Amino acid sequence: MSVSTALSDTTDIPAYMQAVGSAAREAAQGLRRADSGHKNGALEAMAERLDKAREAVLAANADDMQRGRDAGLDAALLDRLELTEARIDAMIAGLRQVAALPDPVGEVDGLRARPSGIQVGQMRVPLGVIGIIFESRPNVTVEAASLCLKSGNACILRGGSEARSSNAALSECLKAGLKDAGLSASAVQVVATTDRAAVGELIRMPKFVDVIIPRGGKSLIERVSREASVPVIKHLDGVCHVYVDATADVDQALAIAVNAKTQRYGTCNTLETLLVDAPVAERLLPALAERFAEHGVELRGCQRTRQVLTRITPASDDDWSEEYLAPVLAIKVVDGADDAMAHIERYGSQHTDAIVTRDYSLARRFMAEVDSSSVMVNASTRFADGAEYGLGAEIGISTDKLHARGPVGLEGLTTRKYIVFGDGQTRQ
Amino acid sequence: MSVSTALSDTTDIPAYMQAVGSAAREAAQGLRRADSGHKNGALEAMAERLDKAREAVLAANADDMQRGRDAGLDAALLDRLELTEARIDAMIAGLRQVAALPDPVGEVDGLRARPSGIQVGQMRVPLGVIGIIFESRPNVTVEAASLCLKSGNACILRGGSEARSSNAALSECLKAGLKDAGLSASAVQVVATTDRAAVGELIRMPKFVDVIIPRGGKSLIERVSREASVPVIKHLDGVCHVYVDATADVDQALAIAVNAKTQRYGTCNTLETLLVDAPVAERLLPALAERFAEHGVELRGCQRTRQVLTRITPASDDDWSEEYLAPVLAIKVVDGADDAMAHIERYGSQHTDAIVTRDYSLARRFMAEVDSSSVMVNASTRFADGAEYGLGAEIGISTDKLHARGPVGLEGLTTRKYIVFGDGQTRQ
Repeated sequence: MSVSTALSDTTDIPAYMQAVGSAAREAAQGLRRADSGHKNGALEAMAERLDKAREAVLAANADDMQRGRDAGLDAALLDRLELTEARIDAMIAGLRQVAALPDPVGEVDGLRARPSGIQVGQMRVPLGVIGIIFESRPNVTVEAASLCLKSGNACILRGGSEARSSNAALSECLKAGLKDAGLSASAVQVVATTDRAAVGELIRMPKFVDVIIPRGGKSLIERVSREASVPVIKHLDGVCHVYVDATADVDQALAIAVNAKTQRYGTCNTLETLLVDAPVAERLLPALAERFAEHGVELRGCQRTRQVLTRITPASDDDWSEEYLAPVLAIKVVDGADDAMAHIERYGSQHTDAIVTRDYSLARRFMAEVDSSSVMVNASTRFADGAEYGLGAEIGISTDKLHARGPVGLEGLTTRKYIVFGDGQTRQ
Repeated sequence: MSVSTALSDTTDIPAYMQAVGSAAREAAQGLRRADSGHKNGALEAMAERLDKAREAVLAANADDMQRGRDAGLDAALLDRLELTEARIDAMIAGLRQVAALPDPVGEVDGLRARPSGIQVGQMRVPLGVIGIIFESRPNVTVEAASLCLKSGNACILRGGSEARSSNAALSECLKAGLKDAGLSASAVQVVATTDRAAVGELIRMPKFVDVIIPRGGKSLIERVSREASVPVIKHLDGVCHVYVDATADVDQALAIAVNAKTQRYGTCNTLETLLVDAPVAERLLPALAERFAEHGVELRGCQRTRQVLTRITPASDDDWSEEYLAPVLAIKVVDGADDAMAHIERYGSQHTDAIVTRDYSLARRFMAEVDSSSVMVNASTRFADGAEYGLGAEIGISTDKLHARGPVGLEGLTTRKYIVFGDGQTRQ
């Protein structure tokens, strides 16, 4: 966030954020009462409003792009900031996809009679008000708003200052859609100041905000987690491993390792450290090195790896806990699954770890014992994703253990309350 | 916690707590691998050890009682501190009950095939290491340890200093039981210092502790929540309501209100504010006043309540948000369910709220719209309890929305990770 001048002339940030929070809390009460049809109607209305406002949205985005170029933003950031007709099409399609998802709210689990005569179950309900803090991509505004609305939550969105004009234009479409459907426009609020103090307020309003989801770089997430008094669903490191067991099908291992590393470099579920069981090292490593050379991936190996691949860089201890997010792969030769699991326990980030094996019992052990948000047998770590898992859409991937772990879809934006049906029962 | 001298001569509290934390983390790895039979064996061994150590436990407790009397602890505190043969019997029975509960760990939900060919599901797994901070009742040591062990978690228990000798003696039985079953004795650790700095360390070791559960008074819980860097499952206020609708069966309303208020005064699910729909006020209130007078319950009413019950104390605005935990009840006459729900929304603590009604649609609305951890129709709020809900045992009642809400049993001490089965699938 390189630009920090205020969009509005709001000077009393605490008072402004209190007003935003209070309006969100009130809107959340209304949303709790809204049925699926009503919420889906609003999503459809938002899609229509966005479709009609293409010109205004693109013009606002052009302002942001110009300001970004003037401020010297790099090409990757500018690419994330840019909106095109195709990206608007994707946002509209996204709104309709979310409307088509099943609504988790109201689902009742485990309703059963108790000896006292009462019936007890758990009903899925919205969390209430969700604060989302994100960086340059303006399409997050639409995506986050749609998931919060569908799950019955009001949301307060704080986007990056680079995207302020785009976010303001998108916000108009979302609010108009809410009004078209007869819902409170305060159900989705985009924070209308780029003053960083607004974030400080947002994360310290437990009276008005039930959970904060920061989406962005590690420093943003760490700051938010450290300073928040509101619970945070967070996503930190993804130091993901593939362990190739001695019994593995070598071709399968090759395909999985190459896909997990090279399909995309910058994602959290990308392979960062490959663990190779000693008995397959000599067969697997040369073929791997060849494939990775084709992709321009730099390899860094432990001493035993370098006995086979003599020309690669030595890995230092730091490499084992590094999330490269780049065409670099650390490789370590280990002595069996226990050694591999000990390495994952020590250096991993409990995000996504996979084993490649033909050994049934070992597959079961790895599945049960590796304490990560996704644990896989014979599949690429790149599958750790809301869409691939069938969640329909994801608001993020949680590396926390409490509440939501792994990809967070609509269900992760809800909670369950107990419901009790009686006919006058009293406790004895 | 009036006594604050150290039990052990531990002077370097941070180093001591780090050692405790590190041992717990290691023990948690072992527990993740332990199957149900193994964990149940340890619970049975703990029960046997406790049965054989009755004399030592009672002697240790006599020390605590003597010190408590010398320190001038009040009768209620001394009662909570005291162990008797019957209370030891209850602890032993509790250990066996927990052994008999179904083990939530390893349960897989929603395993299904995805278009990519992978199979995805969610597996219930232990949280890891649980820190529990509690006050005078030494039986919490055994109860908390058993629930953590059964759910596959290591635990660090920090009891009240008044109970230090009792807790140390109980801890010996638990550790011996773990060893008998071949599990690490560090799976249950009772903090061996009463220095308050130990709590400060425990709640700030995210590397070693996955969640903190404080059990005790509000000031303890608020302090822990404020200072912790580890997630906290907490229990704050229980300002519970019963709303008697105009259509209610008056006898049922009477029975529920009296039970909810008088069955026990000091519990969090006790009724604190009764809301009465205007059309039934004249019929209900005099009968209620009579019943409450028999129980010695002081009534405090709003102006309209006092038009019917002319002699009772006026309720001030503070009464609506007061958790009396005493034979006092606030009463307010309201105009229908919307007015009642608005009152609950404004003054309630989102713990447990009930409606008494014969109106089907209204029952459904109240159930859906009241945002509390337990919402009831025609039943006493006193049912909001792990045992009454069939959880088998409870570690506490959560007033949080994330993770666990309401009574927390074994399931609340676990989390779910994604598991993926493939045959070499890669992401396209």
